[in-house]
Amino acid sequence: MNPIFSTLPTTVFEAMSSLAREFGAINLGQGFPDDPGPEDVRIRAAEALRDGFNQYPSMMGLPVLRRAIADHYARHQGLDLEAESEVMVTSGATEALAAALLGLIAPGDEVIVLEPAYDAYLPLIRQAGGIPRIVRLTPPDFGLDEAALRAAFSERTRAIVLNNPLNPTATIFPDTDLALLARLCVEHEVIAICDEVWEHLVFDGRRHTPLMGLPGMRGRTVKIGSAGKIFSLTGWKVGFVMASPPLLRVVAKAHQFLAFTTPPNLQEGVAYGLGKADAYFVGMRRAYARSRDRLAAGLRDLGIAVLPSQATYFLNIDVAPLGFADDAAFCEALVREHGVAAIPVSAFYSQDPVRNVVRLCFAKSNATLDAALDRLAGLA
Amino acid sequence: MNPIFSTLPTTVFEAMSSLAREFGAINLGQGFPDDPGPEDVRIRAAEALRDGFNQYPSMMGLPVLRRAIADHYARHQGLDLEAESEVMVTSGATEALAAALLGLIAPGDEVIVLEPAYDAYLPLIRQAGGIPRIVRLTPPDFGLDEAALRAAFSERTRAIVLNNPLNPTATIFPDTDLALLARLCVEHEVIAICDEVWEHLVFDGRRHTPLMGLPGMRGRTVKIGSAGKIFSLTGWKVGFVMASPPLLRVVAKAHQFLAFTTPPNLQEGVAYGLGKADAYFVGMRRAYARSRDRLAAGLRDLGIAVLPSQATYFLNIDVAPLGFADDAAFCEALVREHGVAAIPVSAFYSQDPVRNVVRLCFAKSNATLDAALDRLAGLA
Ligand SMILES: CSCCC(=O)C(=O)O
Ligand SMILES: CSCCC(=O)C(=O)O
Repeated sequence: MNPIFSTLPTTVFEAMSSLAREFGAINLGQGFPDDPGPEDVRIRAAEALRDGFNQYPSMMGLPVLRRAIADHYARHQGLDLEAESEVMVTSGATEALAAALLGLIAPGDEVIVLEPAYDAYLPLIRQAGGIPRIVRLTPPDFGLDEAALRAAFSERTRAIVLNNPLNPTATIFPDTDLALLARLCVEHEVIAICDEVWEHLVFDGRRHTPLMGLPGMRGRTVKIGSAGKIFSLTGWKVGFVMASPPLLRVVAKAHQFLAFTTPPNLQEGVAYGLGKADAYFVGMRRAYARSRDRLAAGLRDLGIAVLPSQATYFLNIDVAPLGFADDAAFCEALVREHGVAAIPVSAFYSQDPVRNVVRLCFAKSNATLDAALDRLAGLA
Repeated sequence: MNPIFSTLPTTVFEAMSSLAREFGAINLGQGFPDDPGPEDVRIRAAEALRDGFNQYPSMMGLPVLRRAIADHYARHQGLDLEAESEVMVTSGATEALAAALLGLIAPGDEVIVLEPAYDAYLPLIRQAGGIPRIVRLTPPDFGLDEAALRAAFSERTRAIVLNNPLNPTATIFPDTDLALLARLCVEHEVIAICDEVWEHLVFDGRRHTPLMGLPGMRGRTVKIGSAGKIFSLTGWKVGFVMASPPLLRVVAKAHQFLAFTTPPNLQEGVAYGLGKADAYFVGMRRAYARSRDRLAAGLRDLGIAVLPSQATYFLNIDVAPLGFADDAAFCEALVREHGVAAIPVSAFYSQDPVRNVVRLCFAKSNATLDAALDRLAGLA
């Protein structure tokens, strides 16, 4: 057995979704929407599936999708990606992360990780032989501390993993933090592996700033995106990796033996969807922001302390005032006794966890959110 | 850069398919069928995609598919798998292999690999820190040599990777070889990772014997299957892993950070398809056997030496009598000058390659096969 994997628990998202099923709970844990996703995108993929080509496409992705990705990020984020040499399609962002980390990290390389961190990062870094260097972020704003960040860089730093917008905190790193990160990456010749899967889920008129667009970062950034998140189709597992040719070539070498390729019918649907007019993206953000506001207002009415949510499918609550010293214990009680599943934010820390914050997914119908709020009445 | 991946060439299948596109060649290289796959299976998945649930399913797979897999292998191979604890769905057999090897192999473990071997095995074993022990198989029968096999087992052997039926040789290991393998695995307490993706593609009335069914192997076998291969839908990338609970649990821990989950719509289609009556499987085998016979007869008519093909989508030819000392040079000339792509079997050896054998895919329409034969006229 490989102890890196065999000693791990089942990912908290799956574990909580299982508990939700077991207890008939409303699942505000794992991040997936009630929304069925855009009908035209689903129809397009369904047609390709029924009548189109269902054999291995190129391991780099369908040319039509790679061009659509390059066009999409030119239009939405001002990036100049060459479809042929700088864009690869993966079987979801998790596979993209695995290929990037296993491809680019060599034994002994140090990799900076900001915690709270998505739970795939550390095992994959360790599997690559990398040594994680943790920079801890804390509530309420989960901001970067310049001294702590500087201290994490060393001679042996090979990469930093940046998740922006940040899951589970629902925060966006301010441009000053991104500029600092970019300066440090350039100074130390470090690669940034940017998990930007929440880039379209930013609210209140905010815009996502891709780290790749900052001075000096174009050739040292591996940007990861997710069609599942863009189109509310999380089960499709279509991800993107964007990077300069020398980096992408190596990520592709790992990809070819992790998943090799991604269903062409789903790729067709995504290629079509990425070309949608701005109204779609604006409308999606507005709809999710309304859901966020509905859940936040309902929680506040119940006397529950809600942290700010700028992005993602999530908002966080402070469970200390509710008398819970431990977020995991709170979540256990919540799913068993109140019939609502949530995610303890401590699960995103490998050391010295923050223990008073619990994440709720608001990407749900009004009926689901209201039913969850009913079940939470009496908590505070 | 991780030298395990960064120093690798692009997989020969992709490289040859690229050359085929570049030269407008008929692609008898990479193994994928011209057949569009069963319409009812495609329609079922298309309906699920258009109207069904498109969010993350359980990381272990849809319950309906896990039950269908258990039922399928009970009916076709007499295996008694428990859907809940012994079956997992993956994003293709490549992801299944990655999860099995990265999950089960620890640094320093020796892993026996029979060559010719699928090109994903060695990099994944090395990435896990394992030490490959190669057992070389040679034409024309690519049989197991008992002494060589015995010599490969040591105190440190953790696993053996068995591909049966064997790609690229198109051979099936005889039951005596399988019995020997099983005895050695039991004696040395070794796990067998069985890549049995070609199990349904066996011809001339042969039956596939799953190694898992042999005495002592039930608890020490990880069996990998592929819906893409069963249904001629290679692009779907739906694979299966079957193993006793202690093994599967660890493979799942790796899977959760390599791909996590697989599109539920495709899983629905596969669940439906696995329940098809025997006539489907018999008919599919017959159709592929006819294509094999058509290509083999055509090649023989051209004076080309064809090796026996018992299984898979492939048959092999001997290029030495054609005046080629090097299969790779032959394939280069074939794709550039004759407009037919093929795969050099030397690409399946890490050391001391067999150099006179070239693999052709016959899973093509009669028109494709005949056009390829036209282009090959004059070779011999
Ligand atoms: C891969 S399951 C996790 C989905 C998600 O992004 C989350 O819930 O944080
Ligand atoms: C993953 S591409 C290879 C397909 C195949 O099994 C083969 O051509 O051998």
